[in-house]
Amino acid sequence: MSDAYAEAGVDVPLADRAVSALVGVLKTIDIGRASRSVLASGHYAAVLQVAPNLGIAVGTDGVGSKLIVAEQAGRYDTVGIDCIAMNVNDVICVGAEPIAVLDYIAVEQADPGVLEQIGQGLKKGAEQAGVEIPGGEVAVLPELIRGHPSPNGFDLTAACFGTVALDAIVTGEKRRPGDVVLGLPSSGIHSNGYTLARRALQQDGGFSLDDRPDALGGQSVADVLLEPTVIYVRAALDLMAAGIPIHGMAHITGGGVANLLRLHGEGGWLLDAPLPVPPVFELIAECASVPPAQMYEVFNMGCGFVVVVPPDCEMTALTFLRRRHPGSARIGTVTGHDGRLELPSLGLLGDAGGLVAA
Amino acid sequence: MSDAYAEAGVDVPLADRAVSALVGVLKTIDIGRASRSVLASGHYAAVLQVAPNLGIAVGTDGVGSKLIVAEQAGRYDTVGIDCIAMNVNDVICVGAEPIAVLDYIAVEQADPGVLEQIGQGLKKGAEQAGVEIPGGEVAVLPELIRGHPSPNGFDLTAACFGTVALDAIVTGEKRRPGDVVLGLPSSGIHSNGYTLARRALQQDGGFSLDDRPDALGGQSVADVLLEPTVIYVRAALDLMAAGIPIHGMAHITGGGVANLLRLHGEGGWLLDAPLPVPPVFELIAECASVPPAQMYEVFNMGCGFVVVVPPDCEMTALTFLRRRHPGSARIGTVTGHDGRLELPSLGLLGDAGGLVAA
Repeated sequence: MSDAYAEAGVDVPLADRAVSALVGVLKTIDIGRASRSVLASGHYAAVLQVAPNLGIAVGTDGVGSKLIVAEQAGRYDTVGIDCIAMNVNDVICVGAEPIAVLDYIAVEQADPGVLEQIGQGLKKGAEQAGVEIPGGEVAVLPELIRGHPSPNGFDLTAACFGTVALDAIVTGEKRRPGDVVLGLPSSGIHSNGYTLARRALQQDGGFSLDDRPDALGGQSVADVLLEPTVIYVRAALDLMAAGIPIHGMAHITGGGVANLLRLHGEGGWLLDAPLPVPPVFELIAECASVPPAQMYEVFNMGCGFVVVVPPDCEMTALTFLRRRHPGSARIGTVTGHDGRLELPSLGLLGDAGGLVAA
Repeated sequence: MSDAYAEAGVDVPLADRAVSALVGVLKTIDIGRASRSVLASGHYAAVLQVAPNLGIAVGTDGVGSKLIVAEQAGRYDTVGIDCIAMNVNDVICVGAEPIAVLDYIAVEQADPGVLEQIGQGLKKGAEQAGVEIPGGEVAVLPELIRGHPSPNGFDLTAACFGTVALDAIVTGEKRRPGDVVLGLPSSGIHSNGYTLARRALQQDGGFSLDDRPDALGGQSVADVLLEPTVIYVRAALDLMAAGIPIHGMAHITGGGVANLLRLHGEGGWLLDAPLPVPPVFELIAECASVPPAQMYEVFNMGCGFVVVVPPDCEMTALTFLRRRHPGSARIGTVTGHDGRLELPSLGLLGDAGGLVAA
């Protein structure tokens, strides 16, 4: 995968091997009864049956090294939004309505002011997503958490659960060649790729968090790096409530455009009209000399969420999506080339193995 | 609260203030619809209604600084059991059947061998509890996680959800004076109080992890510190399946015997026949000169889980409990002294403010 990413300190093959070692063991769990899972693994959320036509969709995700930027900038009131976003945007992908999020905050030192700020972000995110936070955990672990500098270190992660009628689960399997692919704008980097983004801007580019490079149009590096992840829940719920047949939804996270390949079912992806790319990505690419193929493998590049609908629903769906997310647009179509990603305007072609210049 | 605990580096009042600051904000979340919560906060798990008579019980907890012992000892295959235990033992307290656990592992470095071992513990725990692990997250955060030494640092936490009929939720409200209090043995320290336990044994006592002090009867310090937390799920489910009216359940975690005060409803606790105290607690008290009141405020002192039943169910309940947990016994009764804790054989008396010598 991305060389730039590896140089930035993320050994993706090693991390993949480690996760495989863990999952390999977890797959052998035998609990003495049939599994309640009704969705093959690898999707954005697991769904477990709890009643005849009711499933609980669950997922867990953290904010990762974006937290270090919050710590360095002394701004703790937005990463809670990211924490909620990363979880609810995953759970909505299977067509579930997110109901509740449980947060876990590990801190080097318990600081009431910092925890209050973190809480403000969680509150904003929860209100945007329409989820409750009925529980959580604060762990004070000075020996385990590393600060920048000490004692300000913290980690923030969460788990989310939602409800979905079993006959309404969205997997991607209903998509057909000719279906339209709708993209919803991201607000910037969201919560993935921060190891590379930070290295590019802070080390290679030599920018401090307070710098306001021309390329960022007046925003500071901290502003851009801490821009909260967009929450797409209400837009997706609008489409479902309107009865629009959704053939697939993808949250564009780490792995960039290849997230589309996580959807179940057959068919490839021709993305002939990508959304505009926010300036921060151009600055990252320039500072760290990252070629386009790698940028699209690591970052969302302006598109944070994707919805697939039949062609005759395109305009109705876009009308709903644009109410919540102006700039939403048709970015491509589903093709018959199973597992293939095509971005002709960028000269990129790829599959699960990665993107290359076509 | 515990002076010994504060000296060991845990500033409980500060941590409490920080949690209050966070919770104060989270309580103001307005999601634009009625809450689905059907249980006042402060219990072991939240319960959210998802169908006319179906609730989802949720909770989240981590393993804490016990993980540092695992890292120092190079034994990673048991803390997964602790991680499952801390979560499922909480969720069962409200009468829910735990269904699934989602793990979150933050590592300083992705090491396939270590993650495989962590997975083996999670598997054992999941099988003991009868829960699936349908998802999880591994975050490689070298800048955020501190090793002992680097790069072996890791954090392990999880969230659990279970199902409960709304008319079968166990809150503690049904308990009455004269009800019997049954104690289930712990395996030792479980997963709370490790800051004090480690300081007492490793610093004050000067023991290395490989030492085998006479007081531990042949076991090494590492053996005792890494003894996995007992999982009480199947025993509790047995009681429920047998139709025994359960008037309260409490997982004895950080806060020790005061965990009983988390149960809803009225009535106090006369614990006139505490379970035998495992040797590790006597060694900790000796090494760090911790008086009994503080020991019972921090540690489970041999009793990891408590079940309250009407007096006429005592023998039937004990028969079931002893099949899974030999040594389970009646440890006391519910009294009419609301909020009071009495341990007469130890000369201790207390309430939510703490324990004192009577």
